[in-house]
Amino acid sequence: MLTLYHFADAICAQKVRIALAEKGLQWESRDVSTAGLRDPAYLKLNPNGVVPTLIHDEAVLIESRIISEYVEDAFDGPALMPRDPVARHRAREWSKQIDDSLHLNVFILTFVYKLREIFLKVPPEAQAKMLPGVRNAVKRQVSIDLLERGWASHWPLAAVVRFKQVFDDMEIQLARNAHLAGSDFSLADADFIPYFKRFIDLGFAPLFASKSAVQDWWGRMKARPSYKLAILDWDTPQIVESYADARTRFADEIGRLIEGA
Amino acid sequence: MLTLYHFADAICAQKVRIALAEKGLQWESRDVSTAGLRDPAYLKLNPNGVVPTLIHDEAVLIESRIISEYVEDAFDGPALMPRDPVARHRAREWSKQIDDSLHLNVFILTFVYKLREIFLKVPPEAQAKMLPGVRNAVKRQVSIDLLERGWASHWPLAAVVRFKQVFDDMEIQLARNAHLAGSDFSLADADFIPYFKRFIDLGFAPLFASKSAVQDWWGRMKARPSYKLAILDWDTPQIVESYADARTRFADEIGRLIEGA
Repeated sequence: MLTLYHFADAICAQKVRIALAEKGLQWESRDVSTAGLRDPAYLKLNPNGVVPTLIHDEAVLIESRIISEYVEDAFDGPALMPRDPVARHRAREWSKQIDDSLHLNVFILTFVYKLREIFLKVPPEAQAKMLPGVRNAVKRQVSIDLLERGWASHWPLAAVVRFKQVFDDMEIQLARNAHLAGSDFSLADADFIPYFKRFIDLGFAPLFASKSAVQDWWGRMKARPSYKLAILDWDTPQIVESYADARTRFADEIGRLIEGA
Repeated sequence: MLTLYHFADAICAQKVRIALAEKGLQWESRDVSTAGLRDPAYLKLNPNGVVPTLIHDEAVLIESRIISEYVEDAFDGPALMPRDPVARHRAREWSKQIDDSLHLNVFILTFVYKLREIFLKVPPEAQAKMLPGVRNAVKRQVSIDLLERGWASHWPLAAVVRFKQVFDDMEIQLARNAHLAGSDFSLADADFIPYFKRFIDLGFAPLFASKSAVQDWWGRMKARPSYKLAILDWDTPQIVESYADARTRFADEIGRLIEGA
């Protein structure tokens, strides 16, 4: 029995939903609202106060990257990791880039687009309790800076610069192989899909418009049944509209970041 | 044929040296000096400009955490990961904490102890080129803050607070099981050993003095042949003395951090 604590638009949960869909697994959904992330009962399951958390029988599993490796280790179905040790390392190397910088970078962009306005509306004491980074001093510090300075902070440009670098690296790899870790689809591809989706939602598609191998890969990823099951089917009209609205309101800021990167 | 690019006191290289020693593997050593990290030839191998890099025949492998998983995947010898998927996940969960926060925290402490004085001696243009975080905006930003504010920065206390939290978590786990991922030694233990060593070198041993399960585990880890091979045999008198010297000079600052955490 599998139960996933998550919410529709949570990027790390999307990674795990793709892995589950690719394995053909059924699971029960527990929707965790933003307030639910600080619920003491949820913090017992996930002390970092983030989603996803996967419950498999008695086991409580946290941290999306390694939840997906767990799904691969624990279940039959299509292999989501290569067998060759070097290719396995390549898959992990791509995914690790998400943990090491891309996740924070998407968080930074999402924060200035959407979260900042929410936090600015609540009184300072409540702000401190709600701010991300319960056990992550960097995320906390970045959140405080973004809350204070918004688009004037140096973090958004640094985030876009890092993404541009990744697209360059992907173009080189995907010109040689159909997928990030070699010829076959792997957890590396699964992990990058939600980041691409978000990056496009945030208005940064122009940054990889000229990269033909990346474009081709992205077309193939979107065509996989797992993309519909794990991403599109959870995209409410409200989510879609909130990104469209932010892209319009922040068109100048987005343009400046694309120009500057 | 295995070749490791590293240097004696590089904490991430120490993790991989332990994994190699536990597997009983022989390897050739290529010492990379601090200046060598910015050598274009080295940056071709490791674009992040950090050690370690492991070369196995034709394969270039970077990122210590996943190099160690590669060593486990690619070579026979004692198993360094459990077979049970839940236990494998637990091992990865411990190791991931290093990548997500402990590594940056040790970097922060090492910076205010040793690196800051080195950087302060060089002219500003050279500083910018030498500063850590070639492709890591957070590490770069933290380095700049530590360079400017030293012990007055808020980062050192945040680092020590996070370590204290980890010792609490370890005490709970190690009171139940002999090792971090269960009854057997795993890469989780291998990965934590160099961080314990460094934390003690930096003068923070009092923070886990009262934790008996952690103390017992640490005694057993130090007694493993891999500890001598991978750590002690590389500890030059100069390295040992530089930590002893910093512990003496910064005794007040260390005391305040321990008090405050």
